[in-house]
Amino acid sequence: MEVGDVVKIKTNTGEFEGVILPSINKDVITLKLKNGYNVGILRENIINYEIIEKGKKIEYKYPPLNLEKKHDKTISILSTGGTVASKVDYRTGAVHPSFTADDLIRAVPELMDIANIRGKPILNILSENMKPEYWINIAEEIKKESKEADGIVIAHGTDTLSYTAAALSFMVKSTFPIILVGAQRSSDRPSSDAYLNLISSVLAAKENIGGVYVVMHGTIDDKFCYLHKGVKVRKNHSSRRDAFQTVNDEPIAKIYPLDKKIKFLKDVDRYNEKKIEINTNLEKKVALIKVYPGMDGEIINFYVDKGYKGIVLEGTGLGHAPEYIFENIKYAIDNGTIVVMTTQTIYGRVNMNVYSNGRELQKLGVIPCEDIIPEVAYVKLMYLLGNYDDEKVKELINKNLVGEINYRLI
Amino acid sequence: MEVGDVVKIKTNTGEFEGVILPSINKDVITLKLKNGYNVGILRENIINYEIIEKGKKIEYKYPPLNLEKKHDKTISILSTGGTVASKVDYRTGAVHPSFTADDLIRAVPELMDIANIRGKPILNILSENMKPEYWINIAEEIKKESKEADGIVIAHGTDTLSYTAAALSFMVKSTFPIILVGAQRSSDRPSSDAYLNLISSVLAAKENIGGVYVVMHGTIDDKFCYLHKGVKVRKNHSSRRDAFQTVNDEPIAKIYPLDKKIKFLKDVDRYNEKKIEINTNLEKKVALIKVYPGMDGEIINFYVDKGYKGIVLEGTGLGHAPEYIFENIKYAIDNGTIVVMTTQTIYGRVNMNVYSNGRELQKLGVIPCEDIIPEVAYVKLMYLLGNYDDEKVKELINKNLVGEINYRLI
Repeated sequence: MEVGDVVKIKTNTGEFEGVILPSINKDVITLKLKNGYNVGILRENIINYEIIEKGKKIEYKYPPLNLEKKHDKTISILSTGGTVASKVDYRTGAVHPSFTADDLIRAVPELMDIANIRGKPILNILSENMKPEYWINIAEEIKKESKEADGIVIAHGTDTLSYTAAALSFMVKSTFPIILVGAQRSSDRPSSDAYLNLISSVLAAKENIGGVYVVMHGTIDDKFCYLHKGVKVRKNHSSRRDAFQTVNDEPIAKIYPLDKKIKFLKDVDRYNEKKIEINTNLEKKVALIKVYPGMDGEIINFYVDKGYKGIVLEGTGLGHAPEYIFENIKYAIDNGTIVVMTTQTIYGRVNMNVYSNGRELQKLGVIPCEDIIPEVAYVKLMYLLGNYDDEKVKELINKNLVGEINYRLI
Repeated sequence: MEVGDVVKIKTNTGEFEGVILPSINKDVITLKLKNGYNVGILRENIINYEIIEKGKKIEYKYPPLNLEKKHDKTISILSTGGTVASKVDYRTGAVHPSFTADDLIRAVPELMDIANIRGKPILNILSENMKPEYWINIAEEIKKESKEADGIVIAHGTDTLSYTAAALSFMVKSTFPIILVGAQRSSDRPSSDAYLNLISSVLAAKENIGGVYVVMHGTIDDKFCYLHKGVKVRKNHSSRRDAFQTVNDEPIAKIYPLDKKIKFLKDVDRYNEKKIEINTNLEKKVALIKVYPGMDGEIINFYVDKGYKGIVLEGTGLGHAPEYIFENIKYAIDNGTIVVMTTQTIYGRVNMNVYSNGRELQKLGVIPCEDIIPEVAYVKLMYLLGNYDDEKVKELINKNLVGEINYRLI
């Protein structure tokens, strides 16, 4: 059996027919089934097999890792898990995060032609299990690793990648790039976007720009990746490779991984000296509440009674909430909980001066958050409440700190 | 002072400079200020004024209402409030819903060239204050009015228009069109989209199609409107005129209001007989919960302990939730609360078979909702729980009932 062959394989758990894909693990046969999914079969579990059709020979080999320092710039890849650093669980067929950073580099040896590459696994989770404590770990690891590297790439699951990007944007101030990268298709599938996303992320990490960014496919084909600002990006599709989109702004740059070129679409500050400051104070008692017709306003009381310090409402339209929850919002504000408003339309700006509902909410003390993405407002409120007194928090929540607010009208 | 003049007006509350806009109310001068907003000034409050520049004469007149039946088809416009049926509050400058359906027709007399028009105000609210009880009122009014009309147009605020469209889609089965229409700019502004949206909605309401639809601008210019399926549409921008977009599907038709033409983009069933059935049973104890890193899983216990029958999770990615809330989800399911999964990416399909997190959630009993929009899943779960026993609800939640699931891969 060779890569490309159409085979029928009998195992003790059933019979599988499909095309053999390249497999990183020599003990495993990876098969693309007709339904489009891949399945991994341990060679030792194969009872017998039949080659239905010989495929064309596909070249697929891993060169030895060459980590010698031959480039000017050194880029560290910190892996946290997720699809970009995952492989199929050959017991269940599900995808688990189990690549180390070394595996990543081994899978994409071209990275070594772009920069000196360091790799370090710092977490091994699927990003749906991300939590604020881990954001703090990541920030601390970035600071440590920055002593050795000129730029940092963080391989991260896509589910909550934009939340982490936003959190790091507030917590880490750097004069070198911190690039979060993910993949929508697992990296042991030939159809994976991990390969080009990773190359693009390392290209971006070599630039002398500061701050936190996200690099992901720009289109469903493999033409280019986008460099998104970490506080202005969102996962807007569950499975497409171009799921990540800049919201209420334009992407920073287009990255052409095959040409190894970056085209900046905006002016960005350039730095010659490497500096980093981190501030990992986060108030965890902050809630994000989506508003909808028929919602139970007592959910607000629930959080207030549990000692929550901040609530981000994901309102309707220009930043509205049903008048039947006004009393609950009043309860929150009377008890010292800071309540801020974003919009569930995702795109567009909150404007609470146009309709009576918005005006009434402002009278209650609800603070409009301009064009901040709801998830970013959640992270920002955690950061502000972790560092400032209430008056300062109210003053800063709708002031632009790190690019999360775009005052240009969209 | 005439329409188009640039004037400076002094009132007892301040001095205003701007261009005079057409005003529906003869007692009021509407001024477009330099900041882009309109202000209404009661003539009796004007202390003095100065004409800074004479404008070009703009023709603007309202013909008398002519409600004689000269067309084959009669369309009823039921107004519920909202921007499409609102005018500026001349005391505060804010926008209030205060047009009656007759006012709407008076403002867009061209409607009378398209069909015999009936108008009836059934609610007078801003749609941010919408609640399930009102959905029931609207369904009942549709049934009553359908005796007199061949098609129904519902003028509705845009904030929660898509929630109402989804609710009516499940509650009302009709062989004639029910068209929800809104406006992003208030209808007494010349820049309003109300005019073309209304004409387009009446054009759509004349078609011999069944079911519930939304008609709104298709682009930011005035070229065409889209006819969206009521269960596949979402407000994706807070202020743009083309804020409403079909999600995980294609719009049903393009409507060219100036040419008075409809171009269908899909095949739709056609009906010759007028039938309607309504089912207004809704279980109100259903919650929509957005999942995010650091979320407090006890929010689920809160709802369960309050006797909630259903919970829609707006998960991450392909339909995931942090493992640290699994115990709370288990608590809900153990107590008989039905928990279903959608995705906060808005676009794309839930697939809980790919990653271990999704598989574990399914083992707990969480039901994936295919490509249903989270807000639509919320409404659907209310409808199902209002009408069926739990086993049937679990069976139907991810089966297509009225077009809310698109099995074609997107």
